[in-house]
Amino acid sequence: MNKRLLCHIVGNVVRVCGALMLLPVAVSLILQSGDTVPLLLSMLITAAVGTALALIQPRRDTLRAREGFAIVAFSWLLVSFLGGLPFYFSGYVPSLVDCFFETVSGFTTTGATILTDVEALPKGLLFWRSFTHWAGGMGVLVLSLALIPKMGARSIHLMRAESPGPSTDKLVPRVANNAKILYEIYIALSIFMVAALLFCGLDLYDAVVHMFGAAGTGGFGTYGDSIAHFNSASVDVVIGIFMALFGVNFSIYYFLIHRNWKAALGNSELRWYWSILLGASCIIALNIMPLYNGNFLTSLRYSFFQASSIMTTTGYATADFDLWPQLSRVILVMLMFIGASAGSTGGGIKVIRFQLLLKSMVRDIRRTVHPKSVNTVKLDGHTVDEGIISGVQGFFFAYILVLLSAVIIVSIDGFSFETSFTAVLATISNIGPGLGMVGPVGNYAAFSGLSKIVLSMCMLIGRLEVFPILMLFSPSAWKK
Amino acid sequence: MNKRLLCHIVGNVVRVCGALMLLPVAVSLILQSGDTVPLLLSMLITAAVGTALALIQPRRDTLRAREGFAIVAFSWLLVSFLGGLPFYFSGYVPSLVDCFFETVSGFTTTGATILTDVEALPKGLLFWRSFTHWAGGMGVLVLSLALIPKMGARSIHLMRAESPGPSTDKLVPRVANNAKILYEIYIALSIFMVAALLFCGLDLYDAVVHMFGAAGTGGFGTYGDSIAHFNSASVDVVIGIFMALFGVNFSIYYFLIHRNWKAALGNSELRWYWSILLGASCIIALNIMPLYNGNFLTSLRYSFFQASSIMTTTGYATADFDLWPQLSRVILVMLMFIGASAGSTGGGIKVIRFQLLLKSMVRDIRRTVHPKSVNTVKLDGHTVDEGIISGVQGFFFAYILVLLSAVIIVSIDGFSFETSFTAVLATISNIGPGLGMVGPVGNYAAFSGLSKIVLSMCMLIGRLEVFPILMLFSPSAWKK
Repeated sequence: MNKRLLCHIVGNVVRVCGALMLLPVAVSLILQSGDTVPLLLSMLITAAVGTALALIQPRRDTLRAREGFAIVAFSWLLVSFLGGLPFYFSGYVPSLVDCFFETVSGFTTTGATILTDVEALPKGLLFWRSFTHWAGGMGVLVLSLALIPKMGARSIHLMRAESPGPSTDKLVPRVANNAKILYEIYIALSIFMVAALLFCGLDLYDAVVHMFGAAGTGGFGTYGDSIAHFNSASVDVVIGIFMALFGVNFSIYYFLIHRNWKAALGNSELRWYWSILLGASCIIALNIMPLYNGNFLTSLRYSFFQASSIMTTTGYATADFDLWPQLSRVILVMLMFIGASAGSTGGGIKVIRFQLLLKSMVRDIRRTVHPKSVNTVKLDGHTVDEGIISGVQGFFFAYILVLLSAVIIVSIDGFSFETSFTAVLATISNIGPGLGMVGPVGNYAAFSGLSKIVLSMCMLIGRLEVFPILMLFSPSAWKK
Repeated sequence: MNKRLLCHIVGNVVRVCGALMLLPVAVSLILQSGDTVPLLLSMLITAAVGTALALIQPRRDTLRAREGFAIVAFSWLLVSFLGGLPFYFSGYVPSLVDCFFETVSGFTTTGATILTDVEALPKGLLFWRSFTHWAGGMGVLVLSLALIPKMGARSIHLMRAESPGPSTDKLVPRVANNAKILYEIYIALSIFMVAALLFCGLDLYDAVVHMFGAAGTGGFGTYGDSIAHFNSASVDVVIGIFMALFGVNFSIYYFLIHRNWKAALGNSELRWYWSILLGASCIIALNIMPLYNGNFLTSLRYSFFQASSIMTTTGYATADFDLWPQLSRVILVMLMFIGASAGSTGGGIKVIRFQLLLKSMVRDIRRTVHPKSVNTVKLDGHTVDEGIISGVQGFFFAYILVLLSAVIIVSIDGFSFETSFTAVLATISNIGPGLGMVGPVGNYAAFSGLSKIVLSMCMLIGRLEVFPILMLFSPSAWKK
């Protein structure tokens, strides 16, 4: 492990995080929200730590896969710790573990909160809290890549460690340009969304903050009852649709911009994604109709919003879905497993992985029937390499294994099976709310420190797609 | 699909089932339990159906993999239906779906019951109910193989479809002999167990019936409070240890008999099996100590029995573990996932599959760190073929997929997430009791007919290790 290079790059990432903190400081000053000092202090500490680490000059320039994974893992850990300082210094969150939990939840775009009364916090802090979603959405690292082009060719290892989905789609050859295009799409969609929310009557602050939560598929808001606060069908529809759009593979937008209709609309993950989302919305709408006076359209308004929110792993709520019938609750739990598309800002196992797992299962059954036949798995007309299938199968096992192991530890706290299980599932899939105590009107405050740390690790493991974090525990990664 | 051969062989299996029903008829006559007529009538119908099917003579002798799987699947379905007739004719279970559920539960050695008052049933019926465990334990099919040697070489396809575990250990080359040896071990262990239970003071009927439940790793008993009824530490210890012994790969006993100590004790699955079982027992014992006046040995008596019962997928209970602390309950749920050893009478995913999945995960992590290194997965000193690993990974996904899909359907009934989830897990892993409503003092009576059929299918899918049942839904299996 090239530790000096590790420190150097992690330091640069931390400096970027410090620079990002300028924004909430500015917001705090403009709105006179009274939280400028803790924000400014945290920014200075972050900038100092980042600069100190960045000053360590690497002796060798070698960036191998293991350094790539370690940089990603440590950057997220350190940025989450430093990013939580404003909550600590302001006095609103007196426990450092809670601050870390809240900020990991922000950067990993999970949206799980330990706050019992979010409306008590000043606007500068709430802005920063939601802004971590937006920054985390595409990865602090990819952001740094776009800003620090000197890393150049080496950065492919970082990209591989951080970008969601089984394989990095190569839109354009150079990584820095690639990141730049993704960010242009991201920013354009974000601006459209703010405009749409302003049009629905939200003020600028609410529009921007809730755009942050939706664009990053995070879910932090500024009101205790989430999106239900606005009590507006048009806001529900706008946020519901934009969440779904941020859960689409961003390559699709790149293809659309370049009028490559065939590549965009022929994408089978896109079809599966919308089919699952709309199918689940309709079943839930039929199931909850009795709760909405038998009105299908009203039911659909709530069911589509919730399905979109959960499947894209955002976690906003317009209704307390924990009170819905069992079938609807269980369908939402299944959407938590599936997650969004690869190459989007969403989390979870991802639609394309389920496609590959299902296709390879059908192949296995066919092989059982015709043992001598040679069957390959095809996706969008291309034969999928067996190595990728095996990788996805291994990923699936690792995901379930981490999930079940974390459930064991969290259950020490003694909360119900439903609460423990969905708390872990909602964190590892970067959603936020689960069922029971961690339902849409609940929070994670009551968990023990141990559980909060385990759940924080689940968020990171989910966001970084399991292996970068597990690798840190592998002794061979640290050998010279 | 060679349908005539399918009918012919399924008919022979059904005839064997009819012959097995002679035993409960005899018990009913000896004990004068008043249920001779329904048992005799069912036996005659079963024998008639079996003979009618067996009279269909195949035109061709070809037995391919697909026929093998179809024979196994249809045999289990038909035998479960016919085996449930005594409950129906006796009037104790008025619903045919319930009769089917109870008998599938018996033959698949699950032990899930729809009976709300088991003690109301006469002794002949209860004997038959438990006897289905014993017959199902090694597979009605393998039993038929041992009895119908004329099938000879073709039967390897049946063996492959039915024997539990990722690969059929070839103890001796000929399948009929193989089955014979396994049965000799099975019968010998069963006799030892009856002797031990008689020594503990049980009467012959109770000893034999509870041996059936333990040997088949089923869990049907004759008392509402299961093994707790005897209220005897020695009975708990004897049944606890024998359950664990029946969850060991039977090849181990073959090696021990032939004094091949190296092969027996060098088996890593055996070490993992005992380590997990004893480790879980100790953690649970520490966790439940406050419930037993802080006495570790008393706690261990209950925790070992329960861990052994759940891990071997038997399902007997000496305590209402549904009332234990969350940690203990969740550890038991994890044991439900893991299951017993391959080549035993137990169900679940099996220890050896978890070993392979974990080892291949470690290999994947190592590959991430050293992308250029070539790593193979080794087990007991042998390199494991990549095809087997991929097969196990595919099996794992199919298992979880069936589990989650069944949870969706069962949740239509509206019971709690804990009840729906553990009901499906306890049936697909062939355990019987779960948590909540289906806990050790509960039963499956309240589920709807649809849920009971889905749960019955889960039992069959679990017992036949997923693919034989899923294959039935593959159109290509039915083409000429």
